[in-house]
Amino acid sequence: MKKVKVGLIGTGYIGRCHAIAYAQAPTVFDLKGEIVREMLAEVNPELAARQANAFGFRRSTGNWRDLVSDPDIDVVDICAPNFLHKEIALEAIRHGKHVYSEKPLALSVADAEEMTHAAQEAGVKTLVGFNYMKNPTSQLAREIIARGEIGDIVHFYGTHNEDYLANPQTPRDWHCQHALAGLGALGDLAAHIVNMAHFLVGDIEEVSGDMMTVIKQRPDPEEPARLVPVENEDQASALLRFKQGAQGVIETSRIACGRKMGLTYVITGTRGALRYTQERMAELELYLHDEPTGRQGFKTILTGPAHPDYAAFCVSAGHGIGFNDQKTVEIRDLINGIAANDRMWPDFAEGLQVTRVLEAIAASAVERRWIKV
Amino acid sequence: MKKVKVGLIGTGYIGRCHAIAYAQAPTVFDLKGEIVREMLAEVNPELAARQANAFGFRRSTGNWRDLVSDPDIDVVDICAPNFLHKEIALEAIRHGKHVYSEKPLALSVADAEEMTHAAQEAGVKTLVGFNYMKNPTSQLAREIIARGEIGDIVHFYGTHNEDYLANPQTPRDWHCQHALAGLGALGDLAAHIVNMAHFLVGDIEEVSGDMMTVIKQRPDPEEPARLVPVENEDQASALLRFKQGAQGVIETSRIACGRKMGLTYVITGTRGALRYTQERMAELELYLHDEPTGRQGFKTILTGPAHPDYAAFCVSAGHGIGFNDQKTVEIRDLINGIAANDRMWPDFAEGLQVTRVLEAIAASAVERRWIKV
Amino acid sequence: MKKVKVGLIGTGYIGRCHAIAYAQAPTVFDLKGEIVREMLAEVNPELAARQANAFGFRRSTGNWRDLVSDPDIDVVDICAPNFLHKEIALEAIRHGKHVYSEKPLALSVADAEEMTHAAQEAGVKTLVGFNYMKNPTSQLAREIIARGEIGDIVHFYGTHNEDYLANPQTPRDWHCQHALAGLGALGDLAAHIVNMAHFLVGDIEEVSGDMMTVIKQRPDPEEPARLVPVENEDQASALLRFKQGAQGVIETSRIACGRKMGLTYVITGTRGALRYTQERMAELELYLHDEPTGRQGFKTILTGPAHPDYAAFCVSAGHGIGFNDQKTVEIRDLINGIAANDRMWPDFAEGLQVTRVLEAIAASAVERRWIKV
Amino acid sequence: MKKVKVGLIGTGYIGRCHAIAYAQAPTVFDLKGEIVREMLAEVNPELAARQANAFGFRRSTGNWRDLVSDPDIDVVDICAPNFLHKEIALEAIRHGKHVYSEKPLALSVADAEEMTHAAQEAGVKTLVGFNYMKNPTSQLAREIIARGEIGDIVHFYGTHNEDYLANPQTPRDWHCQHALAGLGALGDLAAHIVNMAHFLVGDIEEVSGDMMTVIKQRPDPEEPARLVPVENEDQASALLRFKQGAQGVIETSRIACGRKMGLTYVITGTRGALRYTQERMAELELYLHDEPTGRQGFKTILTGPAHPDYAAFCVSAGHGIGFNDQKTVEIRDLINGIAANDRMWPDFAEGLQVTRVLEAIAASAVERRWIKV
Repeated sequence: MKKVKVGLIGTGYIGRCHAIAYAQAPTVFDLKGEIVREMLAEVNPELAARQANAFGFRRSTGNWRDLVSDPDIDVVDICAPNFLHKEIALEAIRHGKHVYSEKPLALSVADAEEMTHAAQEAGVKTLVGFNYMKNPTSQLAREIIARGEIGDIVHFYGTHNEDYLANPQTPRDWHCQHALAGLGALGDLAAHIVNMAHFLVGDIEEVSGDMMTVIKQRPDPEEPARLVPVENEDQASALLRFKQGAQGVIETSRIACGRKMGLTYVITGTRGALRYTQERMAELELYLHDEPTGRQGFKTILTGPAHPDYAAFCVSAGHGIGFNDQKTVEIRDLINGIAANDRMWPDFAEGLQVTRVLEAIAASAVERRWIKV
Repeated sequence: MKKVKVGLIGTGYIGRCHAIAYAQAPTVFDLKGEIVREMLAEVNPELAARQANAFGFRRSTGNWRDLVSDPDIDVVDICAPNFLHKEIALEAIRHGKHVYSEKPLALSVADAEEMTHAAQEAGVKTLVGFNYMKNPTSQLAREIIARGEIGDIVHFYGTHNEDYLANPQTPRDWHCQHALAGLGALGDLAAHIVNMAHFLVGDIEEVSGDMMTVIKQRPDPEEPARLVPVENEDQASALLRFKQGAQGVIETSRIACGRKMGLTYVITGTRGALRYTQERMAELELYLHDEPTGRQGFKTILTGPAHPDYAAFCVSAGHGIGFNDQKTVEIRDLINGIAANDRMWPDFAEGLQVTRVLEAIAASAVERRWIKV
Repeated sequence: MKKVKVGLIGTGYIGRCHAIAYAQAPTVFDLKGEIVREMLAEVNPELAARQANAFGFRRSTGNWRDLVSDPDIDVVDICAPNFLHKEIALEAIRHGKHVYSEKPLALSVADAEEMTHAAQEAGVKTLVGFNYMKNPTSQLAREIIARGEIGDIVHFYGTHNEDYLANPQTPRDWHCQHALAGLGALGDLAAHIVNMAHFLVGDIEEVSGDMMTVIKQRPDPEEPARLVPVENEDQASALLRFKQGAQGVIETSRIACGRKMGLTYVITGTRGALRYTQERMAELELYLHDEPTGRQGFKTILTGPAHPDYAAFCVSAGHGIGFNDQKTVEIRDLINGIAANDRMWPDFAEGLQVTRVLEAIAASAVERRWIKV
Repeated sequence: MKKVKVGLIGTGYIGRCHAIAYAQAPTVFDLKGEIVREMLAEVNPELAARQANAFGFRRSTGNWRDLVSDPDIDVVDICAPNFLHKEIALEAIRHGKHVYSEKPLALSVADAEEMTHAAQEAGVKTLVGFNYMKNPTSQLAREIIARGEIGDIVHFYGTHNEDYLANPQTPRDWHCQHALAGLGALGDLAAHIVNMAHFLVGDIEEVSGDMMTVIKQRPDPEEPARLVPVENEDQASALLRFKQGAQGVIETSRIACGRKMGLTYVITGTRGALRYTQERMAELELYLHDEPTGRQGFKTILTGPAHPDYAAFCVSAGHGIGFNDQKTVEIRDLINGIAANDRMWPDFAEGLQVTRVLEAIAASAVERRWIKV
């Protein structure tokens, strides 16, 4: 079986999630390629070595440039801070590597375009880590829509709300700095719900956005008595028009008290509706307009082996899938994509399209008018 | 005890609801005035007589003008079709009657202004039937906000979605005709959620709206084979800015498959959040940010005797309140307002303010830019 | 129209609920008889007069014997304390009155038998206030079962749990005294769930019960420093066998922290299942085994005009029904039963059957073996 | 680091789940020993080889006796059919291996006793695969109870209901045969809820049980036109008394339409309550009696890094844990138990105690009286 040699850059929150998925994927799925956890890069050689050991990687380096140029790497997996995505990806592409990048693809449309074009010209494959759409439950939502079970989609409401910055005493970190994060909640969170909207309904054509920095200053992490400015938005909302004609609204917040994993959607069709919240990631609510009078209602479907990809994890319905399982599906797509030339999506072109939507929302919020994506 | 002589005009869906509330209110509440169900008006004398008998009214008439000019009427209760609200209210005011009107107050801001000014000049009391805010559960939400339990409000998301026109084969009725209904879902449904936003968060200052007529033609009720145009919007959404600084979004639809009583809100404060859906009208979900680590979560409060007005219906918590009970609270406010000069709210001025917001949303949707209310 | 002259005895918690229902019923329903709120009895003439005024009754008395013997009374409505049910009912029957008694019918099977036989011999009509089964939602459950939509019933799980005595500092009141209440949670609460089991599944044939007095002493209400014994059970459970063959379990508690209106049931059939909780009294969950693979799930049906009796309250689905509305349906049955000789159920015979089940559970708990009802 | 060499016997449903957990565990947890996937046994050498390859095991065999006697195996992991547990475990113990067995430990108390004593005499460590209690959410329930947050436990209601045999056309398989499965739903499902009751409340002292074979015959899998008898119970219920004094009820069914993973519990204490359902395995509902009046309610806690073991999977709350993650926690306990002599629980002694409770329920159902465990 063809080997796929992976080079992982970055082992924080999301890098660790990737590592768990690499470990799990070959047992869960009958992959078309063999995963080789070849090399891992971190900010210094000691940390890199320690993490390589913990995550089962063969080699390690304190310099990501060694990794992207290593001849024994097939795909570069970028879990480094967002502001480094562009530089690393371009270097990897320059060395002919396939690139698997965490979201957001880049801090600006200009950067995302440069990356997408570079990949296209080099003919390398790309994948962006929009893991929530890999959840069997959201795949089921797409299947229901694609089969026309709820008719034509006329409305989409989606959120990605969390509360990790709800406490005003939480010091300013990279999330709040323009140079390191670009947009705030839009870039960090709404990227997921925009991708989900694309996945479920299709491209967004026009937006009217609004955004707000609620907590304008936060303690300096180095010197907590000193307050430093928050440089991007805590919350944002936008009206949407989809290419296929539907109306929509998306909202995002990083200060939404109580929302821990508040990616949600409510999709209305001409013959039914779907409701979903990521906090109950194994449940999809389905309403069918044409059911008998007096027996209509939202039905809670527990994801099970009759639904896409679930059976690989468990053959019984309702037994539950977890956060890391989504990433495992994504890794399956990565490995099969590279080993067997299967389609990989969301690719850089989709990452770029998401960035365009986010940037249009931000621009619209400043100009106070609708903007075409 | 002071008698309050009521004249009811219109006995359809909502008129019947008023009748039930008049019957129930004196037993439920210790009112400050005695309700006299004095006279009822319908479109012809026969129907009027029959309904007066069914609803316990002493006299009846086939001509509402007789009622509003009758010397033995203290308050005119307008449950007539929306397009008649203005004419009836102005006549009633001219005869010095207090006026209790169903929502929407009027079909346009101009009309609502005329009615509000007339009432103010005549010194009569007014009340508009925004019954959902009378629900003890939403009163509790207001109490929690007013006491600062969830901090400063930074975001409001509200909907009033139903599906009574989801079926494209449903013939066009008055809801879909501009001359009879004015706005579509905005006027019929969103009026409630705008009033609720005012009640819970305060005035709305600026809006960016969007609206859509999804089902553009419907069967002519007289001649079902013929299709006639739908003249107003099936669904609408708007970004909001509140005077006190919060962001918001409201949405409305009359074709939202599966939403039977989809008045909902999610209110985010700096220290907590509230969630509510009218379909579970005896439950309020409360999240408090400052609860101990590992013990935080949305708490489902079952409305009970510790909350406003509930104890009048039942002394045990969680036993449930119904749709008509809200109207009974409203009737309590009406009778006490007139008999004892208690404050009556939402009055015509609030009805006007709601109309301004709705009209601004509709105008914004046409002009594709933010509009000040 | 035939008048039905009502004499109400007792105006506490449940008497007040009856009064609200009498006021509301003629407007809600097109009754077959005219309700006359004729006379009200309380423990003294002053309270009786005050309550008669508040509840709209024409006459009042401080002695219930005057009421049951009054020639102008058609039906005696017993909302007096439980230990008085028997004496009042027998007196009323002796005077040829129809009798409408709150539950529990009596404190013992012997008493309930005496009452039932007396009524049968006198040929008067009887009704017992098991109001929860009047809820349109539970009527829908019965309809679904009766139509075979979930196949043959093989299992019933039901509870009636509340927490009104969860606090050990709550003084001992009549609920805890054998002479005044008979059984504890079984008599006060489980009576409802046993009646519901009868209504939905049929007669219970055999039981194995267990019960426990958790808080063995409580403060004397007169002298709180002194502790007095609790004389009946705080919680009880029983295995059941139904006549039609199904297995079952019922549970009850008055110290079930957090359960405010914890009447619930889960009914399993060979082709589906139903779930219900009274705290969400306008929702029924329905699972149908034969739905398409991958689209199965519990569906939340919002009670609406397609379901029994709901339309009388509101013509739109999902708008909600309240606790008092159930009693209004019961009053409809009472008035129509007397005025038009319609069937009245649950009658004394059913009240007796419920008492037999409860007493069998209590006896079984003592004898530690199964007992036939 | 000490190596722990694992021999896995059986690669069906649950064996596959173990394999996923072995793959995932070293990345998720900082283990005290190194997992070596040494050898795998299946019913023939070809299947064994194929599965060894799929699951990452070094060697394979078509004969489990080779595995249990292999000098390079530290722990024997038994995922073979239930009726083989005893024989394999005794052989493994005879060779001085630690034993990790799936539940149920054995088909009878006699067998479980023999196995437990053999392990104790040999001084080997044992673990039984009651994975649901490893879920961080149920660990949180235990923590809340242990800290006295809900007071003294007075009542436990637990179920393990599924519907895998709800369809009467499903052919009879090993689950329905006494010689292969022992008890029916009790052994296959209730074992979990009995273990959970032990984990959360403590030992069960006395039971009154009932059981029923609802579908008495099923198609012969070899010859579907022929019906063969079902030899054990489809559903069962039992009243319980716990050693610490609480009352309880457990129920189980394999024909409970709609329940896909219906392990649930409701635990009532003197100062609060907990509610849980495995179908929402990342949520625990907590009610605290002493919260302020009017602000009481069941709070939905989303499992997160503040709770036991969750942080190893994800550092953000509410992101979700899956079925296989529970097994990964169990594997962590296995490896640390063997490598560092950490406590391993539930061990064979607990497996025996569960079997005693199940057998007492079955005996009680036959004898129709309470039985001491």
